[in-house]
Amino acid sequence: MHTEFVPDRVTDMVNLVVGNDFDEVLRTRPASGWWNQRVVWFAQDDDIVVLPTAPEESFLRYVTAMTGTRRSSLHIVVPPTGSGGSETLSGTTLTDGRLLAEIRSALAGRPITGILPLWPGASVARLATALGVPAALPGHAFVEQGGGALLNSKTAFRAIAAGAGAGLPQGRVCADQGDAVEAVWELVGSGHVAILKKDYMSGGAGNEIVSAVPGLTPVGAKRAVVAADHDAVRRYLKDRWNWLTDDDRHLFVVERFFPDSVACFAEFLITDDVIAFGGHGEMLSEPVTTKQIIPPAHVPPDVLEELARQGRQLCEPLQRMGYRGRLSADAIVTPDGELLFTEYNGRITGSTHVYSVFGDEIVGSNYTKDRVLFEGFWPKGWSVPSFDAAIERLHDAGLAYDPDTRTGVIISSAFDRRDDTLLHCVVAESLPTAHEVEERLARLFTA
Amino acid sequence: MHTEFVPDRVTDMVNLVVGNDFDEVLRTRPASGWWNQRVVWFAQDDDIVVLPTAPEESFLRYVTAMTGTRRSSLHIVVPPTGSGGSETLSGTTLTDGRLLAEIRSALAGRPITGILPLWPGASVARLATALGVPAALPGHAFVEQGGGALLNSKTAFRAIAAGAGAGLPQGRVCADQGDAVEAVWELVGSGHVAILKKDYMSGGAGNEIVSAVPGLTPVGAKRAVVAADHDAVRRYLKDRWNWLTDDDRHLFVVERFFPDSVACFAEFLITDDVIAFGGHGEMLSEPVTTKQIIPPAHVPPDVLEELARQGRQLCEPLQRMGYRGRLSADAIVTPDGELLFTEYNGRITGSTHVYSVFGDEIVGSNYTKDRVLFEGFWPKGWSVPSFDAAIERLHDAGLAYDPDTRTGVIISSAFDRRDDTLLHCVVAESLPTAHEVEERLARLFTA
Repeated sequence: MHTEFVPDRVTDMVNLVVGNDFDEVLRTRPASGWWNQRVVWFAQDDDIVVLPTAPEESFLRYVTAMTGTRRSSLHIVVPPTGSGGSETLSGTTLTDGRLLAEIRSALAGRPITGILPLWPGASVARLATALGVPAALPGHAFVEQGGGALLNSKTAFRAIAAGAGAGLPQGRVCADQGDAVEAVWELVGSGHVAILKKDYMSGGAGNEIVSAVPGLTPVGAKRAVVAADHDAVRRYLKDRWNWLTDDDRHLFVVERFFPDSVACFAEFLITDDVIAFGGHGEMLSEPVTTKQIIPPAHVPPDVLEELARQGRQLCEPLQRMGYRGRLSADAIVTPDGELLFTEYNGRITGSTHVYSVFGDEIVGSNYTKDRVLFEGFWPKGWSVPSFDAAIERLHDAGLAYDPDTRTGVIISSAFDRRDDTLLHCVVAESLPTAHEVEERLARLFTA
Repeated sequence: MHTEFVPDRVTDMVNLVVGNDFDEVLRTRPASGWWNQRVVWFAQDDDIVVLPTAPEESFLRYVTAMTGTRRSSLHIVVPPTGSGGSETLSGTTLTDGRLLAEIRSALAGRPITGILPLWPGASVARLATALGVPAALPGHAFVEQGGGALLNSKTAFRAIAAGAGAGLPQGRVCADQGDAVEAVWELVGSGHVAILKKDYMSGGAGNEIVSAVPGLTPVGAKRAVVAADHDAVRRYLKDRWNWLTDDDRHLFVVERFFPDSVACFAEFLITDDVIAFGGHGEMLSEPVTTKQIIPPAHVPPDVLEELARQGRQLCEPLQRMGYRGRLSADAIVTPDGELLFTEYNGRITGSTHVYSVFGDEIVGSNYTKDRVLFEGFWPKGWSVPSFDAAIERLHDAGLAYDPDTRTGVIISSAFDRRDDTLLHCVVAESLPTAHEVEERLARLFTA
């Protein structure tokens, strides 16, 4: 599953698996420690895993039992908590002398042969350099000079995707308040709906919808705003300017929003030699991304083929500019069946472990032919006292993943103590069956 | 000379040549009207030339006499002066209804077959769309979505150049004050000199040098600052933060500065099919770029070859992401003979007309074999009452360019009324001869 690494594992091969965060200047996410722990799904025997916060032993035991990695062979390294107890693993936290010392001690003289970060931040490149193994990080030169920002910028995406020939919703990149008013009004004034996207947020959290009429359900966006005339659009942009631009720091995107579209993605692994298709899926938002269906259930085969073809096209300039790693190309299929790309993400996404570990490795046997993976966040109202309690309830209800039937529920994240939830993945023969399992789970995890 | 356009000119072929400015959000330059008029050098019979301000007739007569373009066949179009009398040709000025009407009237029903802008701003793409000829602008899709910003960003340059395998000075892209302090101190604290570069400025105007010792001559930068210890570096960055980041709007570059380096460039034309070498030159700065020598006089042939090779490498990701047009790759040759790239500029630069029109077309006959072009701004103290007076003095002194000898002085810019100066190009058999001509010119243009 680690095509990033040398496929034939040799003795004394040590990979550094890094559950790092976005550079703080681009985006901060509160308490991402539990979420970044999903990187453990990628750990193989003898790896060193760097995490923002100490993981629960029960999470580590669960994941390694599922992947077949020897828990005892893994070294888990957590940086000394910074001032203020930040859980963010980025910036200078990654090159802290005590962290480096701990990694070196875990290495015990063995060489690092590969570095797999969650996202290609410049600070990971500095970590690789500090450890004396820049070449262990694929695409080191590009990442070191801040290339990660280009791979997660919605404005760079619009330019590169347009130039690479991928289909895009009508719209443009804005930087100027007057121009943005016109861009929104071009859509809203002609009966369409506009979506505004901040440059560096994800999962819809940096998006807002603007519509001339009320009653629109925000999908893939935090909220829907009504602006019925040119003056209302002007007032809206004035009000939201600092939020949209991070106080004039970043450009943003205005584009046409298509209600009732299907959101989907195709993910690739870019290496020196190939752009390898990884998997594709469908994203459900209510209103921001909560669930994914792998493979997509509501996209016709010819559109899926086109998604993979244009997605690959999008990877080509990124490969040429020196990026190595995962790239997710996100798109919508409009009610008219049109395929339009909406963003890309050059990092290990919330889907990578689902298709590449759950799908390819755990379920296996060409899983997309006879299985559906239905994965994501818990709905409001679900909770469980602990990670162990979640495992126990799944087992007691006979719902835990069973390798013999290749169906059942895989817990996909660490436990989020903020609201006593986690993420899970239902593996089923079909989407309706997966929905039935979800209903049984609802009874397990609601009071 | 217009490989951007279809080479065989057919009847009723009309190109739109646009002397436009950077999008204002990226950079504004005071009174660029006279400077942008150099785009007239690219005008061919029947073209429509859009300029920020009305050009002097004597400038137009001079340029067209030199290029052989029929002055009477050109349509010069100037947008209605905006409120405040701005000379900036960008943004909504380019799609003003009155400007569009004037262009349509000049077209008199003929189709526009090519659009050649000074720089690939999104507003030029909107002009192309408004005129119903998006395909006439090479790379329209990329430009329309703000791709021009990526081609003129010094931070995107660092990532893309590193990834493409071009040599770079030690340094990095900064966004965070603490990280920037470390990046500067890594250089200054180990006996090197640092240069800080704003993301979108050019010609050294957005650069500052930081050194531990006084007495450094700023080359390619506005000034040299002394910061002898870590605390002084910290104070310097605090002081200059808003200037460096345009009030937190943009990232910036910190890299090693090499005193006594030779600055040079290689320029290419990127089309659908090829990356064609255009020309290379040497840049002289005192302290910001003032003169260029084409071909370079102080760069060994093997380094020049490497400049062209790595420069072409740099163009490849840009071609793949959909850019079509000129790309200048700028580099330095250090006193140790190392070639290191320092920025790129995806636009028609201040060199394009010099090598491609003066060199290839006017001087011709493989000019780099037996001629040197020494071109640039006037030194402090030079002035002339008018464009016509400059022509007259050159003629009277026998210094005007002579097609028979393929030597002499070409006036290369419109007249800058702010200080009664212009730019000129000495064409000579050798650099020492060009310097002798400069001395004779000094007597003509100083009181």
